[in-house]
Amino acid sequence: MRYELYYWPTIQGRGEFVRLALEDACANYLDVARSAKGMGALTRLLDSDKSPPFAPPFLKAGSLLIGQTANILQYLGPRLGLVPKAETTRLWAHQLQLTIVDLVDEVHDIHHPIASSLYYHQQKREALRRAPYFTDERLPKYLGYFENILAGHGRRSPYVLGKSFSYVDLSLFQIMSGLRYAFPRAMKKRERKLPRLASLAERIAARPNITAYLSSTRCLPFSEHGIFRHYPELDR
Amino acid sequence: MRYELYYWPTIQGRGEFVRLALEDACANYLDVARSAKGMGALTRLLDSDKSPPFAPPFLKAGSLLIGQTANILQYLGPRLGLVPKAETTRLWAHQLQLTIVDLVDEVHDIHHPIASSLYYHQQKREALRRAPYFTDERLPKYLGYFENILAGHGRRSPYVLGKSFSYVDLSLFQIMSGLRYAFPRAMKKRERKLPRLASLAERIAARPNITAYLSSTRCLPFSEHGIFRHYPELDR
Repeated sequence: MRYELYYWPTIQGRGEFVRLALEDACANYLDVARSAKGMGALTRLLDSDKSPPFAPPFLKAGSLLIGQTANILQYLGPRLGLVPKAETTRLWAHQLQLTIVDLVDEVHDIHHPIASSLYYHQQKREALRRAPYFTDERLPKYLGYFENILAGHGRRSPYVLGKSFSYVDLSLFQIMSGLRYAFPRAMKKRERKLPRLASLAERIAARPNITAYLSSTRCLPFSEHGIFRHYPELDR
Repeated sequence: MRYELYYWPTIQGRGEFVRLALEDACANYLDVARSAKGMGALTRLLDSDKSPPFAPPFLKAGSLLIGQTANILQYLGPRLGLVPKAETTRLWAHQLQLTIVDLVDEVHDIHHPIASSLYYHQQKREALRRAPYFTDERLPKYLGYFENILAGHGRRSPYVLGKSFSYVDLSLFQIMSGLRYAFPRAMKKRERKLPRLASLAERIAARPNITAYLSSTRCLPFSEHGIFRHYPELDR
């Protein structure tokens, strides 16, 4: 199967969670919008009559068109060997992924608390008020939640599902990378309490396919156009 | 199977999407936190070591504990006869439900644009600025998306999946009810362009188990403590 990923071609954004899964599994895939005429193809599928996605990312797998980041990962997981096959485990993995989706939404809304259609500088006053609630309350709550789950397993079960590596670990790596980029001060202060998440992120970065991806041109850099943006004034 | 639903006992909130599915299917379930000592049980499960949910609602099904509204519905769907069994259809239904989750998050953040831990009156200035972007841009985009999907089916296929009724229709009913409660002016103006969604909501309300539920004490009223809140100043 050759997968086609449709996502904005210039940012990591929500598409990165899917890219990491495809890359770790060495899947055969095309990042469509980064190829010639790819943006036209993306736009046409958004406007399609049958099963249109609400927004990117979406994945074409044969005749199937799948939208919503967590739904794509839930579909790819068993096919790429990135989640155990038992339904109970897959539901738990998906539940964790949906919690990551919630965190990502909150991170986006720090720099866009009023409207997606406005620029950051047009809602900076509100962003300045929102940011400390995120770094002081929400960031510790979300990351503490995942740290506790990791702590609940023994040393021989270093992944969020326990012994089994999964796409959720890849997404947690992306969360740690993104938060360190966007909020270096807040994360530096917080990471003392997150040794297991930090160690997980290190192990993921060292996986050969991820190391190769991160140093390739396929991997876009973080920037102030994506979800994780570094505005020093929001990280005091 | 006797299901146990765990959700805040005084609001419809996100739990209502699960309640509607259980009620329509006449499932055997307990709304735990509304029973004696139920809140204690809810809190204990939130603090549990094994597979703790991040937040309510969550569902206990035998020894399984499932969190995240859309994940609960994905699990219940085939078991309650509320979604076709084919994987392709279930993925599409779940994708639509996740889009409803996104809409619900945006509705919540209208009255809480700065922090969940603050009261509305403490972030009213920002809410007043955010609300018109929702009613003018996001509400038409989301509801127009679902209206178009309904329009794409023929007259003999009046549900969002086409011929098959599903839990997604029940959730769209809740969306229409909630938005009409919270934004009566904006919805009155908009509904002319949403005849199929309006007709769907009417048909859902007329389903015998839903009619019975809505007039029972099991159904909590909308209020200014839930997701859909009626603040006239946000509906100009």
